[in-house]
Amino acid sequence: LLSAGQRDRLETVLVSPRNPLNIGATARAMANFGFSRLAVVAPYEAHWREAQSAVGAGDLLQHATLFRTLQEALANSTLAIGTGTLTHRKAEQRVVPLPDLAPLVRDEIARGGRVDLVFGPEKHGLTRDDLALCHLLVEIPTDARQPSMNLGQAVAVCLYELVRASAPAIEPNTAPTNPFGSKPNAPAATVDRLAELVEQSMQTAGYSPRTMQAANRHDLRLLLRRLNLNAADTRRALGIFRRILWRLQHPRAPQ
Amino acid sequence: LLSAGQRDRLETVLVSPRNPLNIGATARAMANFGFSRLAVVAPYEAHWREAQSAVGAGDLLQHATLFRTLQEALANSTLAIGTGTLTHRKAEQRVVPLPDLAPLVRDEIARGGRVDLVFGPEKHGLTRDDLALCHLLVEIPTDARQPSMNLGQAVAVCLYELVRASAPAIEPNTAPTNPFGSKPNAPAATVDRLAELVEQSMQTAGYSPRTMQAANRHDLRLLLRRLNLNAADTRRALGIFRRILWRLQHPRAPQ
Repeated sequence: LLSAGQRDRLETVLVSPRNPLNIGATARAMANFGFSRLAVVAPYEAHWREAQSAVGAGDLLQHATLFRTLQEALANSTLAIGTGTLTHRKAEQRVVPLPDLAPLVRDEIARGGRVDLVFGPEKHGLTRDDLALCHLLVEIPTDARQPSMNLGQAVAVCLYELVRASAPAIEPNTAPTNPFGSKPNAPAATVDRLAELVEQSMQTAGYSPRTMQAANRHDLRLLLRRLNLNAADTRRALGIFRRILWRLQHPRAPQ
Repeated sequence: LLSAGQRDRLETVLVSPRNPLNIGATARAMANFGFSRLAVVAPYEAHWREAQSAVGAGDLLQHATLFRTLQEALANSTLAIGTGTLTHRKAEQRVVPLPDLAPLVRDEIARGGRVDLVFGPEKHGLTRDDLALCHLLVEIPTDARQPSMNLGQAVAVCLYELVRASAPAIEPNTAPTNPFGSKPNAPAATVDRLAELVEQSMQTAGYSPRTMQAANRHDLRLLLRRLNLNAADTRRALGIFRRILWRLQHPRAPQ
């Protein structure tokens, strides 16, 4: 979806963040998902200094740009996206559910635009005036009983959504014969050798009455196939059952 | 995607969480996305009490269940999903990219299963032994230069992924997204009882030298989980190994 160069055309904007831990968490989520441009609007001075000097704060916070107003921060923006919960107010512009956001961002960046993702202060979120500076609002699909997200978590979820479509897909919907791993199943002959050994062990241990043996054999074969054992699994199981059978047959032999 | 009742069949599990803020952030993300079942394994006592008594901690933390071991926490689980970054180790079981996880969870829950999403401690994540108790691993598509996520943010991103598809309905009879068959997996406690029986049988038969027992136990757990045994499979295997073990221990008893 977004190349490294394209990710540099997306900026994360924090408006008046209060908690230094949230500033740090924002920076960490950005680094986790390969974004590096952070703008901070009118932070609480002491908290901003604390966040910048935190252990591991790193380049991203050192290179963040500071603005007095959101309007200045968005001066070069071609698509400013406001975040927040809309429970208590009616949106005045287009609202996009977060799961539908990525194509809009991708297209804007592909056209040469600059995208800003704007997060409000922890307590009350973006004001009506802040939102008036945004082209559209994005809504995270949260539960109506607890709609308001922690700032650092909201940033993480939004940035994840923007990169999730570019995650390397592993052949989707190709109905794999072996869904359990990358290794092929063991050949049927080996599986049947295992079935025989298990059956012999069952009989030697007195598990399987004679009248049930045919049915048990049938079920066992079905079961072993359904398990999609690979070659290493089968080798291991053969080793275990060989040993078990030998011991059942030679109870008094030394270990 | 997931109804409220279905979300109750998904449990979030924190293994030895250290930071009370992360425990609180986990609870908040769960509430944001409509999940309520939290299990906590071997937390640092003081930190756990601090998290539980935090302002606004609420019902979710009060009703969290405490376990001494991850194995006990997962006793009723039919699909345990480990989280983490895999940069430093090779995965021993199937790895699913987070963007592909939702259908697997939805299908397991639709079959009547119980799903656990397991998060490790902040510092080092889940151990190799923890991972051996998981059926599959989920990988969050993070940047290789900063792969490790903050715990609370990782929880938020994973739970968001599970609810994000809620809007577009997916027709039930399309592409087989569920590789496990039509029946739910057996609960982990039953699978572990089987693992113990197999291990005892191996030892009684003299298969497993003492120096190899820990490694064999680890491999056996991984293998049995990878097989996705359903309840009937497990019952059958338990019956067979009970009989085998009894016979190994009583070689001269009449059949």
